[in-house]
Amino acid sequence: MEQERIWTAALVVIGDEILSGRTQDKNIAQLASWLNVQGIRLAEVRVVPDRTGAIVEAVNTLRARNDYLFTTGGIGPTHDDITVDAIAEALGVGVVHHPEAMAVLERYYATRGGLTETRARMARVPEGAGLIPNRVSGAPGIHIGNIYIMAGVPHITAGMLDALTGTLEGGRPVVSGTIGCWVAESEVADLLRDAEKTHEGVSIGSYPFFRDGRTGANFVVRSADEALVAQCLADLTQALEAGGREVFAGGI
Amino acid sequence: MEQERIWTAALVVIGDEILSGRTQDKNIAQLASWLNVQGIRLAEVRVVPDRTGAIVEAVNTLRARNDYLFTTGGIGPTHDDITVDAIAEALGVGVVHHPEAMAVLERYYATRGGLTETRARMARVPEGAGLIPNRVSGAPGIHIGNIYIMAGVPHITAGMLDALTGTLEGGRPVVSGTIGCWVAESEVADLLRDAEKTHEGVSIGSYPFFRDGRTGANFVVRSADEALVAQCLADLTQALEAGGREVFAGGI
Repeated sequence: MEQERIWTAALVVIGDEILSGRTQDKNIAQLASWLNVQGIRLAEVRVVPDRTGAIVEAVNTLRARNDYLFTTGGIGPTHDDITVDAIAEALGVGVVHHPEAMAVLERYYATRGGLTETRARMARVPEGAGLIPNRVSGAPGIHIGNIYIMAGVPHITAGMLDALTGTLEGGRPVVSGTIGCWVAESEVADLLRDAEKTHEGVSIGSYPFFRDGRTGANFVVRSADEALVAQCLADLTQALEAGGREVFAGGI
Repeated sequence: MEQERIWTAALVVIGDEILSGRTQDKNIAQLASWLNVQGIRLAEVRVVPDRTGAIVEAVNTLRARNDYLFTTGGIGPTHDDITVDAIAEALGVGVVHHPEAMAVLERYYATRGGLTETRARMARVPEGAGLIPNRVSGAPGIHIGNIYIMAGVPHITAGMLDALTGTLEGGRPVVSGTIGCWVAESEVADLLRDAEKTHEGVSIGSYPFFRDGRTGANFVVRSADEALVAQCLADLTQALEAGGREVFAGGI
């Protein structure tokens, strides 16, 4: 059987505000879900501080071993926005004002006090880069090689991902199905392991929860093969029910 | 002036469930906030899949260059819980059943169907490790060298952090103060840069927001020197108000 090509992406979250605990990151989950639909797997994430050296290291390591690299954060107009310069350094290229980005910002700021030198900082890109449309606010995202540089504010990031939908090559989307059961996962560990072995090509995750004083677990079955996911879920349900346990669809 | 020793920690989130987008991580923010109070800075985070090689690489890189390394996730009883084995491999040691952990689990499961072989998997630790008390559920966390191995379920992680409070050496806690202003950050970029330069030892983060159709930003001033944070916030407030802008305390 031919081995299916798996497409992977990595994410570098550039954010002192995440590392300080001030802000709860939302972009990891958002990007992961979006990538699933594109048939691309989020393979690894790094959260690094707003420091050039840390960004360069993470970007160069991760872009080399993944099909795509995304970054979020640090592309605004202020002194702590160093993403563009750091990525230009990682790539060994200069930084230029992108003419189309300048035009976008000029239009955006026409009714907002005009395009100042500081605001024009948001048109700076690594030399050779293209733009990612920003339908939410003014400054566009940036695309260079296999790197996608996005905003940190989640609803702006969402708009940029929306603009990228369908433009990246990927494989078959990973499909997942979830069942839940009022059981301690330790009671069904062997059963889960067997189900994963029997259905080659699926991965099964077990996620315990505690609710209303009872112990339960969700079992998530993942594969690029939708029929295999359905079969595995059906077999797993049968095996759990054979042990006299109540199984509910979709987890809770 | 003597350079103050800065203590750093890294976090490895072990979690297919985070990378798949199924679960929104809460442990990064939780650990970051807890570390701040201990006077330790969260320097970097990696989210890696449930794969031994990925865990070993992240653990060995990050434990070498930080004072402390924390991991979350993958310490339950099921087949996808491979953290202990991966960290033992990273350290080049074997895996043993910790006698005290066995005793804890025996007590915990005495009224819950007994300690089965599968449940006893949760007493497995890298050889030479100590335990982190788990006040919430049965299985303890694990401590070996500068590595702290914790649960992935956030409220159990919280209990383990609580048990560790005050036991790790750190420096002066980082203090932060926030002011907010109805202003586009691009209008005050120079002012922010100057404030950071003038008050050596602070870092200033600028975080825009959009609310009720208006643009604003929060400015977060951070330093281990509380007086310096207060002074910088006061000067920044004065500079913003001198431009006719309304400043509010604490951000919104």
